Amino acid sequence: MRTSPLLTDLYELTMLAGYLQEGLSEEPATFDLFFRSNPFEGGYAVFAGLEPALAALEQLRFAEDELAYLKSLNLFRPAFLDYLRTFRFRGTVVAPPEGTVVFANTPLLSVSGTLAEAQFVETLLLNLVNFSTLVATKAARIVHAAGDDASVLEFGLRRAQGPDGGLTVARAACIGGVTSTSNVLAGQTFGLPLRGTHAHSWVMAFPDELAAFRAYADAFPHNCILLIDTYDTLQSGLPHALAVAAELRAQGHELYGVRIDSGDLAYLSREVRQAFDRAGYPAVKIVASNELDEFVIDSIRDEGGCVDIYGVGTRLATCAGRGGGALGGVYKLVECCGLPRLKVTSDMAKATLPGRKRVLRAINPDGGYLQDILALDVDDPLAPGDTVYDPSNPLQHTLLAATATLRDLRTAVMVDGKRTRVAEPLDALTARCREELARLPQGCLRFINPHRYKVSLSPTLNALRNQLIAERSSTI
Amino acid sequence: MRTSPLLTDLYELTMLAGYLQEGLSEEPATFDLFFRSNPFEGGYAVFAGLEPALAALEQLRFAEDELAYLKSLNLFRPAFLDYLRTFRFRGTVVAPPEGTVVFANTPLLSVSGTLAEAQFVETLLLNLVNFSTLVATKAARIVHAAGDDASVLEFGLRRAQGPDGGLTVARAACIGGVTSTSNVLAGQTFGLPLRGTHAHSWVMAFPDELAAFRAYADAFPHNCILLIDTYDTLQSGLPHALAVAAELRAQGHELYGVRIDSGDLAYLSREVRQAFDRAGYPAVKIVASNELDEFVIDSIRDEGGCVDIYGVGTRLATCAGRGGGALGGVYKLVECCGLPRLKVTSDMAKATLPGRKRVLRAINPDGGYLQDILALDVDDPLAPGDTVYDPSNPLQHTLLAATATLRDLRTAVMVDGKRTRVAEPLDALTARCREELARLPQGCLRFINPHRYKVSLSPTLNALRNQLIAERSSTI
Repeated sequence: MRTSPLLTDLYELTMLAGYLQEGLSEEPATFDLFFRSNPFEGGYAVFAGLEPALAALEQLRFAEDELAYLKSLNLFRPAFLDYLRTFRFRGTVVAPPEGTVVFANTPLLSVSGTLAEAQFVETLLLNLVNFSTLVATKAARIVHAAGDDASVLEFGLRRAQGPDGGLTVARAACIGGVTSTSNVLAGQTFGLPLRGTHAHSWVMAFPDELAAFRAYADAFPHNCILLIDTYDTLQSGLPHALAVAAELRAQGHELYGVRIDSGDLAYLSREVRQAFDRAGYPAVKIVASNELDEFVIDSIRDEGGCVDIYGVGTRLATCAGRGGGALGGVYKLVECCGLPRLKVTSDMAKATLPGRKRVLRAINPDGGYLQDILALDVDDPLAPGDTVYDPSNPLQHTLLAATATLRDLRTAVMVDGKRTRVAEPLDALTARCREELARLPQGCLRFINPHRYKVSLSPTLNALRNQLIAERSSTI
Repeated sequence: MRTSPLLTDLYELTMLAGYLQEGLSEEPATFDLFFRSNPFEGGYAVFAGLEPALAALEQLRFAEDELAYLKSLNLFRPAFLDYLRTFRFRGTVVAPPEGTVVFANTPLLSVSGTLAEAQFVETLLLNLVNFSTLVATKAARIVHAAGDDASVLEFGLRRAQGPDGGLTVARAACIGGVTSTSNVLAGQTFGLPLRGTHAHSWVMAFPDELAAFRAYADAFPHNCILLIDTYDTLQSGLPHALAVAAELRAQGHELYGVRIDSGDLAYLSREVRQAFDRAGYPAVKIVASNELDEFVIDSIRDEGGCVDIYGVGTRLATCAGRGGGALGGVYKLVECCGLPRLKVTSDMAKATLPGRKRVLRAINPDGGYLQDILALDVDDPLAPGDTVYDPSNPLQHTLLAATATLRDLRTAVMVDGKRTRVAEPLDALTARCREELARLPQGCLRFINPHRYKVSLSPTLNALRNQLIAERSSTI
């Protein structure tokens, strides 16, 4: 699917026109895409959205109707519109693979190329990476809350931000560990497993609930999940579902499950579980839904709820709630015309980190992740035992453990505007995310006041930054 | 742009297959799309998303590759897939025009047709109406906060949920009163006015800020907005912008404006305003941005901030925050096989309202809106002076003012699957929203504890509902 190059903020085009006119457009530049605090006030994020971003970069070009529209704005000179006609992205993108666990201040994508091309793709990349990373992170949190014995079904399409908001949700949620979706188009597009039940309206369309259940079992004898809360879960839905379970068994089938969509899900799921177990149906699955998120699922499990599948919609699709809503990803110039660049502000946490960088992950001998270190791309021979620095407060520094090994988190995934490898299958991204989370310090997975995983600066990067801040201060 | 019919929850397809198999698919049915509480804990919502929804209904059909995908699921019988090959939406849709102010419990869309077609479009309609209505409402709140002397620019694309999330935001925000967008594709698609400035990276790409400002003014002398907070707003950005303002004037141009994107926006905007006024540039516009929403804008104005244009991004595009994130729109069966239908639960607020309905707005002689009344579509001759009932608590009832006139809020916007009129231009929707808000009781516009606009039931609808609840209780 083509992404229009007009899917951008106007200022990307005006800056491009300005750089061209000022003779700067072909200067070399590097931008870092990063976020300043972990989403959901959590201990980590799950990187996602890379493949859609690379696909959009690779096919970036202006069609004639788009150039005609830009001309109609009476804002740009003819020479600029001619320039756009052959404009392509031919730069380099360095990034970790999707499913990698990442942290605040870590450059996710670094984009190098001409100032023109590297600047122009800002909005596009932020649009495609910010939301996918947010959803993958939310999904990972929800899957963690659900535990190893339950699975999570995504059905947020009706609350998503338009058609492809829903598609983005399904793909990113899968990276974060959600095992199925209700979104049929996502199933077709990404090969995701589909799952669904029926709506209350199915029950209401029949003279009574038992007739509705019988009809659904008749239509889907192999795959029947009955929604049991239309009238009264324990008084009506449960006995009717038990009756249909017996009828199905008499026909040689087994009822797959029941869904509870309202009420006290911990209590109701315990009662329903007991009733099916006592009646000889221990394999019947219990699906629970209704404004679920990681916190609600946590409390259901705390109270001994017996849920096999959590259906999660709105709160996954919108990622609303504390520390959510949006990933605050930004895209900042870090090198231009061969020189490192810095934005300083009165708030040290908002000052940028200059220069082209490597992201190194320090790994314990047991395979556990220790901390990440940002170092310069060249002339920065970092080694275990070195002192590394907190990015917000240079007075805070630690020694990099001598037993740690260092792994470069990122590779050049696009060179000269071409992807360097084929897209990984989605299940590989899901597996990576699962493995990465297992190697994190346990406390990072906590929902409330998680352990803060350290992201530090190498001595060389720290010194460069301090030097640029000092120079900048002296020129104001 | 075609919307795939697979953009739906799996259960819409399984229910469709089930209705077909049970011989119910061609029975007449009506569904109401409504929400149960106003978004943002506010006093109203602005209805939006109708045109995209009608366009999607009109072109709903299954392509061969989509049928092949459904076949590959091994879930559906061949007869059902044949049925889908000629499946169309040929029903009727009743709705208010976009830009209408609406309230909790009001049916927005009512969809009548065969049970099959009316059920199947549930997810699609919710996806297209929920988010647009949420954004239009948020935009109206933000525009109200900005007041009559300032305008609002939308630039949330980088935080939106994927490409067409950003498009949906721009269109719906325009209905709510936002006057321009930074999203170039939205400009092309909907004819919206575009506006933009430049990024911090523009400033950082030059040797110093003054050189960067001069270059931007050189490139866009007629339309130059300078971002003045890259290094220090008052010490650096402001004097440099003043210098460029003078240089532009010497060339016969005027600086259009400056943008402040960090710091104390109320204080900084006052200082910047004074400086430009004193220097003889009272027409220079001040643009403010940085995590703005209706509450922040309110406080900036309370503190005497001098902002001409509020740039609003993340909090409009995501609608996150108190009572936000998602509009809880639902789609409920209200009539089937010629009989009214009801979902009852232990929570009266979640019980549905049976039957096909009119939505009547009671209007005072001065044109002000008094309350809305839901009445049955037929045999319900409501008149001023009648007693009307609260939908959550039948003990609460009021008299409909004798001086009120009643206006039917909705018309049949689609009959037999065809739109009954051409799409209204967007500026007509914006104008309608503005006029509607002016006719609301003032207290409904308040952000904190707003006046609760009454939505009541006609005596006939109330009696029908009570009767159905009593019947349902006696059968459990």
